[in-house]
Amino acid sequence: MIKQMIGIDIGGTAIKLALIDVYGEIHKKWQIPTNISDNGRKIPTDIISSIQHTILDQKHQESEIIGVGIGVPGPISPDGQTVVRAVNLGWEDMPLKSAIEKELDIPVVLLNDANAAALGEMWKGAARGKASLVFITLGTGVGGGIIIDGKVINGVHSSGGEIGHIPVYSEEKRVCGCGNINCLETFASANGFVKTMKMLLPDKTTKFTAVDIFDWAKADDSKAKEALAITVTYLGKAIAGIMNTVDAEEVVIGGGLSGAGTALLKPLKEQIDRSIFPAIRGNYKLSRAQLGNDAGIYGAVYSYLSSDDSLTFEETTGINA
Amino acid sequence: MIKQMIGIDIGGTAIKLALIDVYGEIHKKWQIPTNISDNGRKIPTDIISSIQHTILDQKHQESEIIGVGIGVPGPISPDGQTVVRAVNLGWEDMPLKSAIEKELDIPVVLLNDANAAALGEMWKGAARGKASLVFITLGTGVGGGIIIDGKVINGVHSSGGEIGHIPVYSEEKRVCGCGNINCLETFASANGFVKTMKMLLPDKTTKFTAVDIFDWAKADDSKAKEALAITVTYLGKAIAGIMNTVDAEEVVIGGGLSGAGTALLKPLKEQIDRSIFPAIRGNYKLSRAQLGNDAGIYGAVYSYLSSDDSLTFEETTGINA
Repeated sequence: MIKQMIGIDIGGTAIKLALIDVYGEIHKKWQIPTNISDNGRKIPTDIISSIQHTILDQKHQESEIIGVGIGVPGPISPDGQTVVRAVNLGWEDMPLKSAIEKELDIPVVLLNDANAAALGEMWKGAARGKASLVFITLGTGVGGGIIIDGKVINGVHSSGGEIGHIPVYSEEKRVCGCGNINCLETFASANGFVKTMKMLLPDKTTKFTAVDIFDWAKADDSKAKEALAITVTYLGKAIAGIMNTVDAEEVVIGGGLSGAGTALLKPLKEQIDRSIFPAIRGNYKLSRAQLGNDAGIYGAVYSYLSSDDSLTFEETTGINA
Repeated sequence: MIKQMIGIDIGGTAIKLALIDVYGEIHKKWQIPTNISDNGRKIPTDIISSIQHTILDQKHQESEIIGVGIGVPGPISPDGQTVVRAVNLGWEDMPLKSAIEKELDIPVVLLNDANAAALGEMWKGAARGKASLVFITLGTGVGGGIIIDGKVINGVHSSGGEIGHIPVYSEEKRVCGCGNINCLETFASANGFVKTMKMLLPDKTTKFTAVDIFDWAKADDSKAKEALAITVTYLGKAIAGIMNTVDAEEVVIGGGLSGAGTALLKPLKEQIDRSIFPAIRGNYKLSRAQLGNDAGIYGAVYSYLSSDDSLTFEETTGINA
């Protein structure tokens, strides 16, 4: 029997699922729509029935599903049982683990989606083979996951890796979604980047995206270059501060803004190096995430793998001993 | 036979030693001068002979010394074998662990002194019973130790917890001892605090200490209150950023400035609460270190305790099961 797991990444519009073996090979990948009606109460049932179909399929194929890992867009209680809240899904204290385990009799591991993406990049992506990393997604918001000694720092209030809410200093006052003023996210997210560019333009009604700003900067537009420099300064100093605190092997940047590649990473590395502790400078890696939207399902599976004590070293590491 | 350990805290002028049992009871405490001549090469020998004397003494007392923990004013290599450097002692790549183990045939554990103080406060001080904490010393410089799940985050370049070097934003340019500009330490150390006060005074030649500023602030002096507010703003935002990253149970403040007590901690708590992630706000503890200069020897012993697999749960936790 081939041992396989199901990795799940619950998003606001779609739930991505994949059948993955202990070596990280994806055997099947599919998705179902996220039904957010009735405060997302139907989501667990939808997931259960999708898994049940897969189990029936697998029965003909000499494979066995040994566990499920689920990445969720919200904090997980420190005991790993409950989704504390997931605003986009309408969830509040959702006992997702027991709900699925009860129906399927297969062990389930829950984790936050940014933490899942961080683990995915460590297992099969940009930070393969590393044991500690700082993962940052720069999208509509700024998310993060901190991994030390192969384990996610989830925190005692499930707020470990809330990198987007590190306070920055500014003359401006930008109100964050969390209610605080001048969180990193208000400057270093795609939205923050666009806002910074808007403030530099005389006509505040122009419509454009973060991609446009990178294009303009490439074409040597001075305002676009200034907006990029401002964004990179906030982000680079925050990353240096994080690294001076946890001193990880690698910093991995994902999310929409990371699509700009070296146009973002080169000036960012320079800013980090100006502010990082000398013993770390030059001795860490800054890289772009490699797994894109699949990072979460890989990481969810990896999280299950490392929780299963019955597996062999080879099975949990994917290393052929 | 009573099992005992020796905890050692190597400082620039004195080496503090103590004989401590597995429950954290100090049975004897003494110190020897730090001999920094010849690049501190005599320090290991001095420590060895002091331990040998203690072992001879103990032979008559039905007790056995099972291990030694040593806190060192510098980074320890990730393998725990070597002091990477200790500027105040003149050390560079000092193989302190093997040097002492070879002579005494007793296992030795090395750790950085700020990390030792953090572990000490967790074991027997302000954060007793907690498993995660952010420890910050505000003295001549700013040092720190991060503990997650009972273990110090030493970092891959032995730079975990280098909180003093988190970059802050300022119009000013303060050069830090590490060579970087505007590290937290240049604003939030006792020296930084005095410097901030000096900048607010018309006469720059006045001589005073951090204690004087606290006294003036208490007497409602507006400049002193402003200097305190500036210092607390930098420190509080940095702590909020650290907490949003590692989400520990408690923040413990030690070092000279912590002597001011609530005059420092009250405004600091207010600033942290303004900038911390809402899920953490109100749910963490900010406290003053309790062990003073003994924190390091307690933490060094605790570090040995948690490394010794032959001890029982009761012996390693001090909890009578």
